Amino acid sequence: LDADITGSSIPKMFGLDARPSGSETGILPVLSKSGIEIMSMNLLLPTEDEAVIWRGPLMSKAITQFWEEVLWGRLDYLIIDLPPGTGDAPLTVLQVIPIYGVIDVFTPQELTEMIVKKAVRMAQKMNVRVLGVVENMSYLVLPETGKKLEVFGSSRGEGMAKASGAPLLGKLPIDPELARSCDEGKIERYSSDAVSEFFANLVAVLNRKNEV
Amino acid sequence: LDADITGSSIPKMFGLDARPSGSETGILPVLSKSGIEIMSMNLLLPTEDEAVIWRGPLMSKAITQFWEEVLWGRLDYLIIDLPPGTGDAPLTVLQVIPIYGVIDVFTPQELTEMIVKKAVRMAQKMNVRVLGVVENMSYLVLPETGKKLEVFGSSRGEGMAKASGAPLLGKLPIDPELARSCDEGKIERYSSDAVSEFFANLVAVLNRKNEV
Repeated sequence: LDADITGSSIPKMFGLDARPSGSETGILPVLSKSGIEIMSMNLLLPTEDEAVIWRGPLMSKAITQFWEEVLWGRLDYLIIDLPPGTGDAPLTVLQVIPIYGVIDVFTPQELTEMIVKKAVRMAQKMNVRVLGVVENMSYLVLPETGKKLEVFGSSRGEGMAKASGAPLLGKLPIDPELARSCDEGKIERYSSDAVSEFFANLVAVLNRKNEV
Repeated sequence: LDADITGSSIPKMFGLDARPSGSETGILPVLSKSGIEIMSMNLLLPTEDEAVIWRGPLMSKAITQFWEEVLWGRLDYLIIDLPPGTGDAPLTVLQVIPIYGVIDVFTPQELTEMIVKKAVRMAQKMNVRVLGVVENMSYLVLPETGKKLEVFGSSRGEGMAKASGAPLLGKLPIDPELARSCDEGKIERYSSDAVSEFFANLVAVLNRKNEV
């Protein structure tokens, strides 16, 4: 569920441009190549670069409809992608949808850290658990030497994990291959050691929580 | 004027933590070290990582107050920093404030390009001119060889300029020194050839527009 209504990018990453079809009972999500159900505002626009100039209440209504009127069926997990900040979209998601937990993604800059701490506080205020944090654009592997370069400064992963009271699930590098996969709509074909490690940690956290 | 209410980062970049003082006639902006007047939601919060969990109408009201009730005095230019997307903040700014023009900032990914095109369309729909476009995180200068590495893929500057009908004002690299300056609150001390070139182009555009 792409809850970034005015800047939705999920369909493009998955190479999707089919329109969701409707039935009497609701809207059918669009299936990705590997079988993931997707609903995004961009699937409903005449062209993908059309502007959705909406104030918050309309945005909230769209997110609520994506939750209530889309025929998701039986899912293993519903993943909701949110825009940055603590505005209407996250507030609506936290209020309307029974969220199991939140994953906060940040880049290793003090600036971003401050904004993600706001998001962590928001989750705490609304009694939603933070499952973990992920450091994105953590470093770049230099193509010639294979050395890691921390382009935005030293990793802040451990500090963020401490501040949010949740584990650091992974550190993802800036990877030109990932950028290319997204632009070509082939995100499902992308894999890397860093992503595998992140998924393994995430699965461990979900299994642990399920036991409790 | 920091119009990113839920993710404001301007005060931190400038190293400011003073509270704006009020008078009978309005709110006084905070002065940066080099004398720039600044108003931001983060200057009004008890701590900088406090979450502003606001729906759109409240956000719009804050932006309107920053415009109407702050005693800006005589300014050369009022620069308004907006969050990404085409939601409440840009809509309020375009509706409430008599904007001279818009500068769109993008990173060289097709994904971002699509979202910035939405912003360009928004400006066009609301009859506000696009003064120019800027490519951010355009490349990284490798520390050992001095070579330019386009980490997010080839530059899309010319294409974006064409799509928005406005000149490409600059291509700014990913620069660890810039990230550090922001984190240390010393953005005003930062300078680079790429930034100087961007400013020269911007001044040329503003002068040309003033002549017309």
